[in-house]
Amino acid sequence: MKRIVILGGGFGGVYTGIYLEKLLRKTNPDFEIVIINKENYFVFQPMLAEVVGGSLNMLDTISPLRRLLPKSKLYIREIDSIDLKNNKVILSPKYTHKTLEMHYDHLVLAMGNVTDFRGIAGIHEHALPFKNLADSILIRNQIIDVIEAASCEEDPELRKKLLTFVVGGGGFSGTEVVAELNDFARKFAKKFKEINPEEVRVILVHSKDHLMDRELSESLGRYASKLLQKRGVEIRFHARLVSATPSEAILDSGERIGTKTVISTVPSSPNPLIEGLPLKMERGKIVTDDGMLVGGYENVWAIGDCAAIPNVVAGGVCPPTAQFAIRQGKVLANNIIASIRGKKKKEFKFKALGMMGALGHHSAVAELFGTIKFSGLIAWVFWRFVYWMKLPGIDRKVKVALSWLLDSLLPIDTVQIKASPTQGIARLHFEEGEVIFHEGDIGDYLYIIVDGNVEILSGDQLIAKLGKGEYFGEMALLNQKTRMATVRCLTAVDVLALKKSDFGVLISNFAELRSEFEETEKKRKGKA
Amino acid sequence: MKRIVILGGGFGGVYTGIYLEKLLRKTNPDFEIVIINKENYFVFQPMLAEVVGGSLNMLDTISPLRRLLPKSKLYIREIDSIDLKNNKVILSPKYTHKTLEMHYDHLVLAMGNVTDFRGIAGIHEHALPFKNLADSILIRNQIIDVIEAASCEEDPELRKKLLTFVVGGGGFSGTEVVAELNDFARKFAKKFKEINPEEVRVILVHSKDHLMDRELSESLGRYASKLLQKRGVEIRFHARLVSATPSEAILDSGERIGTKTVISTVPSSPNPLIEGLPLKMERGKIVTDDGMLVGGYENVWAIGDCAAIPNVVAGGVCPPTAQFAIRQGKVLANNIIASIRGKKKKEFKFKALGMMGALGHHSAVAELFGTIKFSGLIAWVFWRFVYWMKLPGIDRKVKVALSWLLDSLLPIDTVQIKASPTQGIARLHFEEGEVIFHEGDIGDYLYIIVDGNVEILSGDQLIAKLGKGEYFGEMALLNQKTRMATVRCLTAVDVLALKKSDFGVLISNFAELRSEFEETEKKRKGKA
Repeated sequence: MKRIVILGGGFGGVYTGIYLEKLLRKTNPDFEIVIINKENYFVFQPMLAEVVGGSLNMLDTISPLRRLLPKSKLYIREIDSIDLKNNKVILSPKYTHKTLEMHYDHLVLAMGNVTDFRGIAGIHEHALPFKNLADSILIRNQIIDVIEAASCEEDPELRKKLLTFVVGGGGFSGTEVVAELNDFARKFAKKFKEINPEEVRVILVHSKDHLMDRELSESLGRYASKLLQKRGVEIRFHARLVSATPSEAILDSGERIGTKTVISTVPSSPNPLIEGLPLKMERGKIVTDDGMLVGGYENVWAIGDCAAIPNVVAGGVCPPTAQFAIRQGKVLANNIIASIRGKKKKEFKFKALGMMGALGHHSAVAELFGTIKFSGLIAWVFWRFVYWMKLPGIDRKVKVALSWLLDSLLPIDTVQIKASPTQGIARLHFEEGEVIFHEGDIGDYLYIIVDGNVEILSGDQLIAKLGKGEYFGEMALLNQKTRMATVRCLTAVDVLALKKSDFGVLISNFAELRSEFEETEKKRKGKA
Repeated sequence: MKRIVILGGGFGGVYTGIYLEKLLRKTNPDFEIVIINKENYFVFQPMLAEVVGGSLNMLDTISPLRRLLPKSKLYIREIDSIDLKNNKVILSPKYTHKTLEMHYDHLVLAMGNVTDFRGIAGIHEHALPFKNLADSILIRNQIIDVIEAASCEEDPELRKKLLTFVVGGGGFSGTEVVAELNDFARKFAKKFKEINPEEVRVILVHSKDHLMDRELSESLGRYASKLLQKRGVEIRFHARLVSATPSEAILDSGERIGTKTVISTVPSSPNPLIEGLPLKMERGKIVTDDGMLVGGYENVWAIGDCAAIPNVVAGGVCPPTAQFAIRQGKVLANNIIASIRGKKKKEFKFKALGMMGALGHHSAVAELFGTIKFSGLIAWVFWRFVYWMKLPGIDRKVKVALSWLLDSLLPIDTVQIKASPTQGIARLHFEEGEVIFHEGDIGDYLYIIVDGNVEILSGDQLIAKLGKGEYFGEMALLNQKTRMATVRCLTAVDVLALKKSDFGVLISNFAELRSEFEETEKKRKGKA
């Protein structure tokens, strides 16, 4: 009995599983299927942007993995590491302090990619990703939250920042999310007599001169750009985000955009788990042969967005789309079973039918068979129809259809779900010249400098300069309600911010053990 | 122009606002309405338990406050404090480090109550509340999460804990949530061939000898108890939770129930904001006259669950139900305006129509006009009908009706939304004899003892005893992957647990500034 372990529950992983289940023998099965995924559901990625805009219910875009893969064994766990030498996957502890080792006979790497948060200062701390369901819920909440806050904010500068939205990356997902964000933010802002809809600014930052340059033809990309601009989206072409802080987005042109909302969709670095493996990579993707086998191995396969699979028909490698991943799943399932049963493997060969992108507000762009191009309402209806057909399961189809119907009949829903508790320690990034807090502000955090330099000012007078390892704002601990000085950054600065309540407990305990620290260290090392 | 400020967006606050809006003059208004609430939506509390069970969509039970109160000004903010002397409410900082002071001419206290997490060791750290929408989503996720985890857990003891659920408090909300939890957990567990449905244990802990003793007649309370027992809920009567730890619930009888899921619905301490005010309180509620005016003030009113309002008809004080709060809102709106316009105030006088409680799975109990009692399917249909009629807004009515319809036609939805990121610092409570970690476990946290004593064991050999202010598990910082010793509690123990990654950054910075700590303190105090 061979064990096939699939890592990842996106299009690639799920469809490999679905086709493997079809190849299971009813009596005397010669293999079992294990899927490991962080969530217990499959996300129908193409519709995720609609959750941001609110035309779909939060749960409409996802299906329980268990229903899609009834004959597979499902582990809802984080993966700690992959041990290709010993054919093992190690799962992280959960509800216990023990890891779980799982042996495989065949391994399918289908973890997709992750939004690249490296190389841009502060982006990890202050930008929202747009990748999974929780992300789209957070983005929607953020839009609601800042507009609510702006409606009762009197400081014109803060108000402007609250009503400005910056999206980095004009690929498929960036374009779709900016379109939905733009529609929703403007529609929602209209509900407030305190807000002039003109105050809402939505800015898309893209490194090329037209949108979706890697996914669509130039003419459609330009059409999409114009359409969004007509609806009020400002597009910065030939530009990149270089830094994000709690209240600014900074572009490589030097432009500093005051904002409380930065979304980054810049694709996409490989999953950190894959990065450490001794595999041949090409632009961050695992190189495979045309049958999806990973070079140097007889039982390791890669599929979908994390794989560089030769595109036999069009040359180059297969694009990272659902269309391809689904077809790859079928061939991969066949090839794994062929290798178990000693049959012949197939090459993956597929010609894309076309590409589509939704632009919110009853419009879309589409391209079929490389020649037919259309846009606007017709493309939008076509978009909905095609993806609705692809939704797995009749229950999901019914729910999505009903949500669309209700969305067109009922007023927009603008409730926000705040689920995440405030964290004990936050890491913040500031840029040169930014003020971390002002004299007279409420003292709610203590800050420790991880990197960079700040100056402490009382009025115009310089009190001190602080650098790495030093801290400020500790007056907040001593029941001082408001700040007695202003702190301004002399360079780019990274700080740890500790909430008053958390730090209080921590420091009072530290005080007692500070002196014992090295002592105890030595003693226990000797004993243990 | 007088300003009426309402604190809280539950039944009491919202209906006061709705009736106040009806009393607004079209031309020359003589007052304005301000509502301050943490969330931008109103929760239809009676249906919240159905979100846990999944027969309602997450958003079906809530309505945007802005739609219910179009003429009021809404602040979505936390309240920092109330200053009755100077007629001011101070709002906490948001997106800035500044508080916001708001003057009022009339103040309505409508903040309800909060689940009482004091007096029970570890309950704050390890029990889930059931009060608002985020709570019900978290509870649903937790049920899904532990059952998923149990399906692939081989350790029989951990497996048992994962499949055991403990609910504290058998009032209305405790009974409703245990009923939904029981139905859902058993239905979901059946989907796993690895789980025998008999393994699922659901335990309700209640201090009296029948359920809903304060809300319903004894006979209906007993009926409800029997019905739940028939469905597999174990009820511990005459019992209370005294402690909760990461893997146990402990009762006053001494019984220790191994579990990973404790839900507490024990009502209900007053809102901390109210507690500090110089107001006459009775059992944690603000005492008012029969017109809802708070004693000693001419412009402070209280309504709903946070108020002890004389029950003119039945004696005692009004019960904390939606039925009463809605009627109170009407009288209160009238009385505030009467006091602004120099008219006569009314007393609040209302005879309850009846009481109902849902028991999940097509059954309920109901009591009308104090005499008619009925239960089972008829009561359940009646329950749905009455509350559906009360839902505010046609859009909500349509959505709820559709959700109920879909729920009866489609298979259950079992996707979980993980939104909350892991916290940097967690506070944990353990009881005497519990093991915090075992030799050989993964070293993922460092622990600082806030209170209590532990022993450190290598095999059977005692290495050290540690107490308040001391720490252990620091080997995790030094790249030691597994624990070299076992840590067991000698008493009840509270610890701070710091994640490896967070602590790494923290300690490396602390090291540098430790010696400078007192020095800097002195210097800056002199200068600032």
